Amino acid sequence: MVSRRHFLQQTSLMLGATLVSRSEAASIPEAALRDHAQTELPSLPAIGRPYNPVVTLNGWTLPWRMNNGWKEFHLVAEPVEREFAPGMTGHLWGYNGQSPGPTIEAVEGDKVRIFVTNKLPEHTAVHWHGMLVPNGMDGVGGLTQPQIKPGQTFVYEFELKKSGTFMYHPHADEMVQMAMGMMGLFIVHPKNPRFMAVDRDFAFLLAAYDIDPGTYTPRVSTMTEFNIWTFNNRVFPAIDPMVVSRGDKVRIRFGNLTMTNHPMHLHGHHFEVTGTDGGWVPKTARWPEVTVDVAVGQMRAIEFYADVAGDWAFHCHKSHHTMNAMAHGVPTMLGADTQDLTSQIRQASSGYMPMGATGMADMSAMNMALPANTLPMMTGAGPFGALEMGGMFTVLKVREGLARNDYRDPAWYQHPAGTVAHLVEDGLPAPTQSPKL
Amino acid sequence: MVSRRHFLQQTSLMLGATLVSRSEAASIPEAALRDHAQTELPSLPAIGRPYNPVVTLNGWTLPWRMNNGWKEFHLVAEPVEREFAPGMTGHLWGYNGQSPGPTIEAVEGDKVRIFVTNKLPEHTAVHWHGMLVPNGMDGVGGLTQPQIKPGQTFVYEFELKKSGTFMYHPHADEMVQMAMGMMGLFIVHPKNPRFMAVDRDFAFLLAAYDIDPGTYTPRVSTMTEFNIWTFNNRVFPAIDPMVVSRGDKVRIRFGNLTMTNHPMHLHGHHFEVTGTDGGWVPKTARWPEVTVDVAVGQMRAIEFYADVAGDWAFHCHKSHHTMNAMAHGVPTMLGADTQDLTSQIRQASSGYMPMGATGMADMSAMNMALPANTLPMMTGAGPFGALEMGGMFTVLKVREGLARNDYRDPAWYQHPAGTVAHLVEDGLPAPTQSPKL
Amino acid sequence: MVSRRHFLQQTSLMLGATLVSRSEAASIPEAALRDHAQTELPSLPAIGRPYNPVVTLNGWTLPWRMNNGWKEFHLVAEPVEREFAPGMTGHLWGYNGQSPGPTIEAVEGDKVRIFVTNKLPEHTAVHWHGMLVPNGMDGVGGLTQPQIKPGQTFVYEFELKKSGTFMYHPHADEMVQMAMGMMGLFIVHPKNPRFMAVDRDFAFLLAAYDIDPGTYTPRVSTMTEFNIWTFNNRVFPAIDPMVVSRGDKVRIRFGNLTMTNHPMHLHGHHFEVTGTDGGWVPKTARWPEVTVDVAVGQMRAIEFYADVAGDWAFHCHKSHHTMNAMAHGVPTMLGADTQDLTSQIRQASSGYMPMGATGMADMSAMNMALPANTLPMMTGAGPFGALEMGGMFTVLKVREGLARNDYRDPAWYQHPAGTVAHLVEDGLPAPTQSPKL
Repeated sequence: MVSRRHFLQQTSLMLGATLVSRSEAASIPEAALRDHAQTELPSLPAIGRPYNPVVTLNGWTLPWRMNNGWKEFHLVAEPVEREFAPGMTGHLWGYNGQSPGPTIEAVEGDKVRIFVTNKLPEHTAVHWHGMLVPNGMDGVGGLTQPQIKPGQTFVYEFELKKSGTFMYHPHADEMVQMAMGMMGLFIVHPKNPRFMAVDRDFAFLLAAYDIDPGTYTPRVSTMTEFNIWTFNNRVFPAIDPMVVSRGDKVRIRFGNLTMTNHPMHLHGHHFEVTGTDGGWVPKTARWPEVTVDVAVGQMRAIEFYADVAGDWAFHCHKSHHTMNAMAHGVPTMLGADTQDLTSQIRQASSGYMPMGATGMADMSAMNMALPANTLPMMTGAGPFGALEMGGMFTVLKVREGLARNDYRDPAWYQHPAGTVAHLVEDGLPAPTQSPKL
Repeated sequence: MVSRRHFLQQTSLMLGATLVSRSEAASIPEAALRDHAQTELPSLPAIGRPYNPVVTLNGWTLPWRMNNGWKEFHLVAEPVEREFAPGMTGHLWGYNGQSPGPTIEAVEGDKVRIFVTNKLPEHTAVHWHGMLVPNGMDGVGGLTQPQIKPGQTFVYEFELKKSGTFMYHPHADEMVQMAMGMMGLFIVHPKNPRFMAVDRDFAFLLAAYDIDPGTYTPRVSTMTEFNIWTFNNRVFPAIDPMVVSRGDKVRIRFGNLTMTNHPMHLHGHHFEVTGTDGGWVPKTARWPEVTVDVAVGQMRAIEFYADVAGDWAFHCHKSHHTMNAMAHGVPTMLGADTQDLTSQIRQASSGYMPMGATGMADMSAMNMALPANTLPMMTGAGPFGALEMGGMFTVLKVREGLARNDYRDPAWYQHPAGTVAHLVEDGLPAPTQSPKL
Repeated sequence: MVSRRHFLQQTSLMLGATLVSRSEAASIPEAALRDHAQTELPSLPAIGRPYNPVVTLNGWTLPWRMNNGWKEFHLVAEPVEREFAPGMTGHLWGYNGQSPGPTIEAVEGDKVRIFVTNKLPEHTAVHWHGMLVPNGMDGVGGLTQPQIKPGQTFVYEFELKKSGTFMYHPHADEMVQMAMGMMGLFIVHPKNPRFMAVDRDFAFLLAAYDIDPGTYTPRVSTMTEFNIWTFNNRVFPAIDPMVVSRGDKVRIRFGNLTMTNHPMHLHGHHFEVTGTDGGWVPKTARWPEVTVDVAVGQMRAIEFYADVAGDWAFHCHKSHHTMNAMAHGVPTMLGADTQDLTSQIRQASSGYMPMGATGMADMSAMNMALPANTLPMMTGAGPFGALEMGGMFTVLKVREGLARNDYRDPAWYQHPAGTVAHLVEDGLPAPTQSPKL
């Protein structure tokens, strides 16, 4: 990743070889980079139209500059290292140092100019999923534009016609590039900041990988048997919780770039789907839900009032997707007497440990020696003990007395470092009713 | 299963070891048990708010008692034996002697107290899916409560804020416990019995298992290649038909706890989805449908007028899900001449039988010797011959002249023993138009 | 396929053996046949109620005759050869010489009589999916009718109660017969041709197959790992584009008879789902979308204004479904140095070629020797180079100056022979904004 440190210098060099002229190259905005997976404070726009920014879970928003009425962004497609959780890192492809790439935020009516520099070993192109753009800006390599070759920079320009929840991803060697992690959110805020306003607005993408235990690079040809199921390329317990104040109107936006549907389930609240990647859903058309199925290549924005304090699970309801990497073909040992068998196997393999004779819950407590770069299958701790989860799982923390709707207050987002384990220590109110055992 | 016969005695014993005090233990209501898979007559409430009960397909409703304004229920999590169909039984985990567990029915506004006793070999916890409960009652082991250890009894208490179609299932060692069959329906009827009233109201859960031929216990780590696809842990032709009177307004409610979507298809009628696990769908938001896709962790209530007499298929539209256990990797024999090959193989394996050279329809008529505890892949008979089905398939029988809306009339539900084959003999009117061959 | 040439003669012969009397056999309408996969010009009805016909992508509409107030159609179930794309043909089962079978089009209120002749090696029956028919006409073999044995002809008669987008498929040995390709569209137009009128109306079915490289017959027992993903049994780049005039109101209708959901994604336009296989969706209930998930056994009609000229991708968003046949278990070579390995393997296998060390985009350019009857995994060319696609992918070509709403103008549909490559040569306007590289 050393090369990133010399980014601007290299870019200028490479640009010389492309059709972006030297004078244009000099004017390309600096590409902001990140080398970590922390949730960053949303930034209010200092200039341009005002809006209520989103919080990208374990992500960040790409800075831009205003140039003659155009908002200019710079995306750099490149190999990156992404920490799925402490203890496991993936060698992925992404944008600006991380995968997913940074969230792009702008406002309905804005004119945006997005420079895309390709630092991958193969060509790429960027499709602005859900957005109404001129055909030449649609980013389908071969169909609407030539591919962006390694070293080249391509310039996309379009006006943002509608507010909503969109995303960007390659439309070039598409299966491989998305399987390697290339994707990012594109949020277009309404021109009128009071339209569809909420108190808290979270956003992330669903992505899945197939990474063999002990290795770092996804198998790009896998179609069904993935083993890493993520929110924004993080797995529980390393996905940040969503902290809100009791009474807040909350929006959560998510898009799916895996290879299967994800039924996203929220505990303790009934919600409505208020937005898709095609715009906002009329009130007459909304359904009350607790689980919304988000198909591949779909985005959903859900809204609800966080009216009951406590720790509420939010997760994909496919139970395999709330586990970290595991083998799917192991025999069931429930009820089996594994004593004798174990002795025999240990003569051949001294570290052998039989699992699951009374269920698998005991696994989360085991301190098994794992291969390098591998996470426990079931993990995480809450105020009442082990959670036995992984993958696509996080917690909505509804707390009393947090300042509402002040996006400039860092305290609002500076909750402890992002694991549910911290619930034990965060000094926030305990659940509202003591269990009776 | 002997232990169940001494249940109360054992429970008292075990309770001594938990935090439920001896005086409390004495007050726990008796846990009703079942050891069969017959559809039971819905029971009208003798006390408490009136409601129109649901018919749980191949299931039953848990009795309760009133205690000082609280409706008290008792669920016992335990290993059970479930007959998928005559000829095949699964060794599952469930509640109160069966899997799925009994349906809990109560009324909007009711205060319910649910005692959960754990007789499994590992800890558990019960999540009330879709219900608006205080955080400490949400049933996520480790997050909102300590796990319920084997032998312990945990008490859940909450008020039923909204009517609708909900379910309960573990949130502890979740993948394993749901893969073993732990789930049940929770129906909350509207306070006003005329609100959303229908003439017939059926309910069941979708569950899938991976059980090797000749064995009894599901493989709990399977993610995609299941081989037993069920309505309420029954497979066709052992799923009871839904018998209604012509002209009835009918509701069918179902929830999905498998690992994939199930597109539920009804023949001969257009329906609307009127309810989800988040509540009732407004009229302006409803779509006309014949196939509704129910995602994992979703519930759907559909409604329609049964206005044409006859036998109407109701099934999952994924054709593999209307088959019983089969191998998915066998080569296609269509068009192959299997005569010579058969002779050769029979020298090695004398019972060998080539299948499928002209399609698979001939299989349903074969009397092949099956391994123990295995069902035919394609089976079932109707008035016109073999149906060649299995799994998630049943029949809506629309008949003339049945009493409408009288939930106290046992005749209404006492149709023959639950296989479509009985259509031939049930003396009910034949389909409305004779086929012309 | 020689036998088809003597169809009528044979049919008469076979009918003698069935319950259709000799006098009836004489009156069966001739069965129209096709032996190619070209999109045919939609035909306006010369008699009967007027309607705006649909364009079946790479398909055709079945002719009918009027007989005493009944529209009479003749379907022949039989083995067929279907060209998935030049270079690959499947040995399927279908109707009237092709798979899918011909589209049946009629009008709300019509009385239709459909003769179904079985020329398969096993029995069959035809279910009219989504249609409101008398029970005896519902086509569930064994349940609502006896199976149609090889050589027999069965007569279905019913009145078309509702307009909408429906389909027909077997309900006999269902998994096998659908896995072999038996399906067809059934479009019922509104009695009032101005109701739900659009300028362009396209229709197709989604089907998937598992055909081993170098072979011709699908593996009928496959449940998840299909390798041929089609629109109407064609794969990109052999799926015809949808050509429309800028400003047109466009409808696209599709139904899914695969084994998994397909999220259908349109570029550059926001659409609404206006119809299902249960009828038309009320305006108050519609959502704005760019990706609609169509579940198995569902049909969806989407509508939008084609208001921006250019070439807009329309495809399933599961990236494996926009690829042709590939292996799903190959290791990732990204970043690997394959030089040495290649030399060694070439000593054993002289044609060996390492793939994917810098991604897979280079594969579409390779002229690899493929096995017989096998397509390139990534293929297709557009005005700006290789598209690197396959499977469920086509292009909506929005052009200026095409005559609107004139279904009698052949020029409207006579676009070049159906590959996107022709975009380069078709003389139509280039995309509206030149890319800036």
